Amino acid sequence: MSHQKFQDCIDECVACAVACSHCATSCLQEEDIKMMSRCIQLDLECAAICRAAAEVMSLGSGFSAHLCRVCADVCKACGDECAKHDMEHCQACAEACRKCAEACEEMATAA
Amino acid sequence: MSHQKFQDCIDECVACAVACSHCATSCLQEEDIKMMSRCIQLDLECAAICRAAAEVMSLGSGFSAHLCRVCADVCKACGDECAKHDMEHCQACAEACRKCAEACEEMATAA
Amino acid sequence: MSHQKFQDCIDECVACAVACSHCATSCLQEEDIKMMSRCIQLDLECAAICRAAAEVMSLGSGFSAHLCRVCADVCKACGDECAKHDMEHCQACAEACRKCAEACEEMATAA
Amino acid sequence: MSHQKFQDCIDECVACAVACSHCATSCLQEEDIKMMSRCIQLDLECAAICRAAAEVMSLGSGFSAHLCRVCADVCKACGDECAKHDMEHCQACAEACRKCAEACEEMATAA
Repeated sequence: MSHQKFQDCIDECVACAVACSHCATSCLQEEDIKMMSRCIQLDLECAAICRAAAEVMSLGSGFSAHLCRVCADVCKACGDECAKHDMEHCQACAEACRKCAEACEEMATAA
Repeated sequence: MSHQKFQDCIDECVACAVACSHCATSCLQEEDIKMMSRCIQLDLECAAICRAAAEVMSLGSGFSAHLCRVCADVCKACGDECAKHDMEHCQACAEACRKCAEACEEMATAA
Repeated sequence: MSHQKFQDCIDECVACAVACSHCATSCLQEEDIKMMSRCIQLDLECAAICRAAAEVMSLGSGFSAHLCRVCADVCKACGDECAKHDMEHCQACAEACRKCAEACEEMATAA
Repeated sequence: MSHQKFQDCIDECVACAVACSHCATSCLQEEDIKMMSRCIQLDLECAAICRAAAEVMSLGSGFSAHLCRVCADVCKACGDECAKHDMEHCQACAEACRKCAEACEEMATAA
């Protein structure tokens, strides 16, 4: 199994991890942080799992599909939360999560 | 959900990640690396997933059980491979994998 | 260079990363999150660098000392911030940061 | 400090981490692994540090420049080693390392 066939999914995972970390740190500077606490929490969980999925796919691992299954789920949860907030960083993160969930879903099903 | 209830499992994941990285780098210095290539490969996959499981549990994530499910599986695969080799680093890694698989299995079932 | 001589420093880095992630997620559940925003931010930066330092040392890398130099600095910054807050998770994190900074400082100087 | 100004450097770090992991796993499948052992070792060190640099920059951390300093150094070491080998994965990794070293160098100096 080569990492080439994983390349699109790797790219989405990596972009999503960056968007989540950026969203978390941006939420921390918002006026009403309280309202953002669940968003920050899910950002951190999603970033951790996206990074792991990207690393494992880069290694061409046979466990990639299993990790992508979990990654699709956390991306959906994080994206749903981010979508509730109007800030640019939340909307951008929601979009990155949506695309990553889709790519991971495909990977999880195909493998 | 607090990280306290996850503490034992976190400790095993972290110890296993360190043992895997150390095993990989030690295998690279062995005379017959060819024989160790599958061991190194699984070490890298296992280390990546153990690190992610530890991080996600430290965050008290609701996705911990799902990640621990994958972690238990990769630990078993890596531990089985390491157990075939007599070197101290492989035997130590096999033992770390065995303990981590057990802790993750319990976490995956309990949650 | 073996990872054995790095073992104490690895242990402190790993414990500090876990304490930081736990502190961040606990801060997010506090009544006055606003007051904790800098603490959460530094927790996240510190956790990321501690995890990297532990991984690089586990690999017996020649770059360990350079990474420990940065790790000591972020641990000091994070520990100083955590020490200002009375919550148990902040005090525990401050102590983990203090011990990790000390171990990394030693590693950075010795190498 | 926003993550936008870091975006190019983040992209290079992330691409380099993926190239390094892919190079390591590809080297493990080569006929003469012995010859590749230093390449694999540096790939692993470089991937770990690139991932950390990308994460820390995504968080808009004040420690980004310090980490980019270390990242530039490991990228140069890894790129020099990869450049010695004719395989496509090594040449691609050497190029990713060269671009990442350049971006990190700039980040380290500018900050």
